[in-house]
Amino acid sequence: MNENTIADSRLKQQIDFISEIDKIKNIFRQTYVSNLSRQENDAEHSWHLALMAMVLKEYANEDVDLLHVMQLVLIHDMVEIDAGDTYAYDPEANKTKRERELKAAERIFHILPDDQADWIRELWDEYEAGETKEAKFALSLDILHPILMNDLGNGLAWVDHDVTEKQARDRVARVKAGSEALFDLCSQIITENVAEGNILPGDGTK
Amino acid sequence: MNENTIADSRLKQQIDFISEIDKIKNIFRQTYVSNLSRQENDAEHSWHLALMAMVLKEYANEDVDLLHVMQLVLIHDMVEIDAGDTYAYDPEANKTKRERELKAAERIFHILPDDQADWIRELWDEYEAGETKEAKFALSLDILHPILMNDLGNGLAWVDHDVTEKQARDRVARVKAGSEALFDLCSQIITENVAEGNILPGDGTK
Repeated sequence: MNENTIADSRLKQQIDFISEIDKIKNIFRQTYVSNLSRQENDAEHSWHLALMAMVLKEYANEDVDLLHVMQLVLIHDMVEIDAGDTYAYDPEANKTKRERELKAAERIFHILPDDQADWIRELWDEYEAGETKEAKFALSLDILHPILMNDLGNGLAWVDHDVTEKQARDRVARVKAGSEALFDLCSQIITENVAEGNILPGDGTK
Repeated sequence: MNENTIADSRLKQQIDFISEIDKIKNIFRQTYVSNLSRQENDAEHSWHLALMAMVLKEYANEDVDLLHVMQLVLIHDMVEIDAGDTYAYDPEANKTKRERELKAAERIFHILPDDQADWIRELWDEYEAGETKEAKFALSLDILHPILMNDLGNGLAWVDHDVTEKQARDRVARVKAGSEALFDLCSQIITENVAEGNILPGDGTK
């Protein structure tokens, strides 16, 4: 469409944003889709989390607002369009993650009209802060999702990165704040994948 | 995970469903992602529609419940795991679409516990019937989305299939019931792509 197709400048900003975020379909994660044919991208991951919120809401420690949780998970990775996916078990990349993502949030959300840019930014800040009951539950789902996917895929993403039991258990510790039941599930899956040799036992030293 | 990992049979059914619907990431549509590197899949499409619902809600003809619209768009293509994607401009495939999709809904939704299976089935039936204000708006977004994506991708999906102006205008007519403003936008984009030669004028006969 050319510059003059949309006369209304508010609608134009909204369509520009919708077009821009299409790029998240090309931000690939370390996790594989279940048939192991390729790694999954952030759009697919976010879709899956929103469905998990619908189906697993009853396991949140506190009664959460479902719309709010769904909005948090649907936008939480949008900054990765500029900042890239930072693998949970990569300590070096995690040092610069926050700075890269803040810069991305400034650019991407402000393609929207100001009121909507502020709204999405507030949602993202809330997710990042992880303090509300909805943000805690959203984070629980975000951590559980690759555990489920890796388990479905015979642990391939764990094997790819020599992930240790210590790393995996440290990672899932934060699930507890959002959902005790889903934390227990993560712990069981880790135990089983250590037994199957997909996750290195302990801290990986013999 | 093995059969005994999850002792709670309700949680097991829910996790089985979450695992099963991963397959939607491998159901590819005719529409390309914006960098034209490949076609998009149903999970990405559904994620994009949920974001569009958040950002474009103000253009619904009637005041819609956002959570409800988001749930409709997030589940609306799930039956395609079994039934496959039926291209909007393929009249033969559209003759058997309903039957294939009903069968898929029976199998896929019933992986869930009965109460949740009934809930998702009601959402899907509501989307398919297209009678509530939320279903009408959800359908408007579902039709607008490939129009936007095809426009972003220089009309490639239209050119691939020799889509005519008549086909495109017939297709977008239903947007009007959910959103007059988004119908106008669709119409403008079609006019422009006819002018650019990406859509064949009229009914395609000279």
